Amino acid sequence: MSQDAQRKSVKPATPILLTPGPLTTSAATRQAMTRDWGSRDDAFIAMTQELRERLLGLAGGQRRHVAVPLQGSGTFIVEATLGTLIGPADKLLILINGAYGERMLTIAQRLNRQAEALRWPENQAIEAERVDQALRDDPDVTHVALVHCETTTGLLNPLEAVAAVVARHGKALLVDAMSSFGALAIDVERTPITAVMASANKCLEGVPGLGFAVIEGQILRAAKGVNPSLCFDLYEQWQGFERNGQWRFTPPVQVVAALVTALRQLENEGGPAARRRRYQENFDVLFQGMERLGFRLFLEKNVQAPIIATFFQPTSPWFQFPRFYQALAARGFLIYPGKLSQADTFRIGCIGAIEPDDFRRFLIAVEAIMAEQKETVGP
Amino acid sequence: MSQDAQRKSVKPATPILLTPGPLTTSAATRQAMTRDWGSRDDAFIAMTQELRERLLGLAGGQRRHVAVPLQGSGTFIVEATLGTLIGPADKLLILINGAYGERMLTIAQRLNRQAEALRWPENQAIEAERVDQALRDDPDVTHVALVHCETTTGLLNPLEAVAAVVARHGKALLVDAMSSFGALAIDVERTPITAVMASANKCLEGVPGLGFAVIEGQILRAAKGVNPSLCFDLYEQWQGFERNGQWRFTPPVQVVAALVTALRQLENEGGPAARRRRYQENFDVLFQGMERLGFRLFLEKNVQAPIIATFFQPTSPWFQFPRFYQALAARGFLIYPGKLSQADTFRIGCIGAIEPDDFRRFLIAVEAIMAEQKETVGP
Repeated sequence: MSQDAQRKSVKPATPILLTPGPLTTSAATRQAMTRDWGSRDDAFIAMTQELRERLLGLAGGQRRHVAVPLQGSGTFIVEATLGTLIGPADKLLILINGAYGERMLTIAQRLNRQAEALRWPENQAIEAERVDQALRDDPDVTHVALVHCETTTGLLNPLEAVAAVVARHGKALLVDAMSSFGALAIDVERTPITAVMASANKCLEGVPGLGFAVIEGQILRAAKGVNPSLCFDLYEQWQGFERNGQWRFTPPVQVVAALVTALRQLENEGGPAARRRRYQENFDVLFQGMERLGFRLFLEKNVQAPIIATFFQPTSPWFQFPRFYQALAARGFLIYPGKLSQADTFRIGCIGAIEPDDFRRFLIAVEAIMAEQKETVGP
Repeated sequence: MSQDAQRKSVKPATPILLTPGPLTTSAATRQAMTRDWGSRDDAFIAMTQELRERLLGLAGGQRRHVAVPLQGSGTFIVEATLGTLIGPADKLLILINGAYGERMLTIAQRLNRQAEALRWPENQAIEAERVDQALRDDPDVTHVALVHCETTTGLLNPLEAVAAVVARHGKALLVDAMSSFGALAIDVERTPITAVMASANKCLEGVPGLGFAVIEGQILRAAKGVNPSLCFDLYEQWQGFERNGQWRFTPPVQVVAALVTALRQLENEGGPAARRRRYQENFDVLFQGMERLGFRLFLEKNVQAPIIATFFQPTSPWFQFPRFYQALAARGFLIYPGKLSQADTFRIGCIGAIEPDDFRRFLIAVEAIMAEQKETVGP
């Protein structure tokens, strides 16, 4: 039976995840999880060291930054970074055009930190000029937070332009690069960035369970005692690694092993530039095929990152998202619901260990499902 | 031989982990990690549901409790539970006879919660009478926290006696059952316990990356808005599961799959009672063999749990812990350093997917290493 036919027969063994993550990983990455590791043993200490070096290298942070991995999901590392770097006397300006910007605001407010939001509609990129104006208007701001690629929509914000403005005002920039790190170029040396936050299971193509921040060493050193949380204190987490190469608290050893394996694969693929090209090809195949089938992208192409595509739900009577989702799932493709207040949409991730051919097969499935489901509604 | 060469020449494919965790898992549990899951897909929602039901069932909490899993290490779920259940007007009494009791105090203090410590030496069990007295002396106490089995030493604290006293005073009892849950009986219905905290990678024999709390539903419902942390708010985490069966933030899908597989194996083994018997047999083989070789247990037998054994380091000149550790590691056995202030010790875990025969092989290795290492010191 062909791989394709196999997938179609009821419950697929390994679905293709066309989501913003967790996503499809390579067989080698999953295979790396099939052994046990002593978390305080030399072999695992060496693996942790490799992990930290590779993450730092990907961010270009060898000169002034340090890499601090943390157990948990992407939101955990965001909360940990904000809680560690923003003190009670600081003030955070959050640039928001999606749910993940809003989430940073929620985190800061709950931690009782001073925080202001500057908002744009979900389909518009952050504008550096308005950030400039806001920083001129409010000199109390000490930190600015930006989501690089908004997973809500797939929108790419102008990191370099915002970073230049923030640096000119002498403020610290914190970047949620959850959906971009590993595929869209980020260089903390060329672009003035205090902290970049990301997670294992997006463009790095690891499995979920681990986040990390690449933080300016001098700033992190000054953050001792700031975070009220023991677990989320990234100063202490960093000091733990520096002291003896070990994690303070039990690490998810298999998740670490998977990520190190995935990072080696990223290097073999040719690094973030090569990965971005593959994702762009995935996106192009998807976009052109979906457009041909009558689906419309939510974003204008000039703000669209090749990471995740948000499509409007067709308004025709044949289309019901749950039925469409289930039919795709039965064929081995998992897509993602939308997350917008202003429009009914669904999302298709272009990231993970997937190739343009997976999208060609996906488009065949979509076309077949459309024919079936239009049939049942009638003319 | 260089450290690197040593590593290469002796690196065992799958070490036997004689540690308090992460520990040796079964091949089936590790195999469960070799596929991808969509975290918002029905298949994964069903798995999360099974996870929560099995955890609740193991604690006997079906009538009044709920199970709330959380991403991260064991300490994460402890911080989350304390932060969610202890409000600013509450006062926590922590019963301490080891590092994990001290850690709860650190967490509470950093969260700026009122907390008092009642301490015993590391080799003595908590005494219910002193707890009774402390609660009579300080009526402001609202919560009491206890570590069931102190991983620092392997000491078993008298959970039932303490729970009876705490209940008589009408206080809430929070139990860190990290090292005991799944092997030593805990029944939140028969024993009055407000919250039990544990993690995937100890007696449940899952992999690390996940903790959970089994909490009285009525108490958790009243804890809305208490936790200043978004990620650690177990009320919100619980509401997420109740709303749509999904995790609020990306779950470590492979770690969840491994734990569910491990929980099915626990049931097949005969549940916690059968698992405790296996661990006790492991412990007995280890203890008798080590005693024959001249090693002495740190704890008296009447407070020793069959979970982890702490041995004094021999004072003879042949014994150097790093050399002893490395020689065992070269033979595929990873042991654990001690964590005591008052004595030089090392620890050997009896838990995980390991059998008495593994300990028999371990003892042969210890005996051989002793002969070798005594040789190099001379008479």
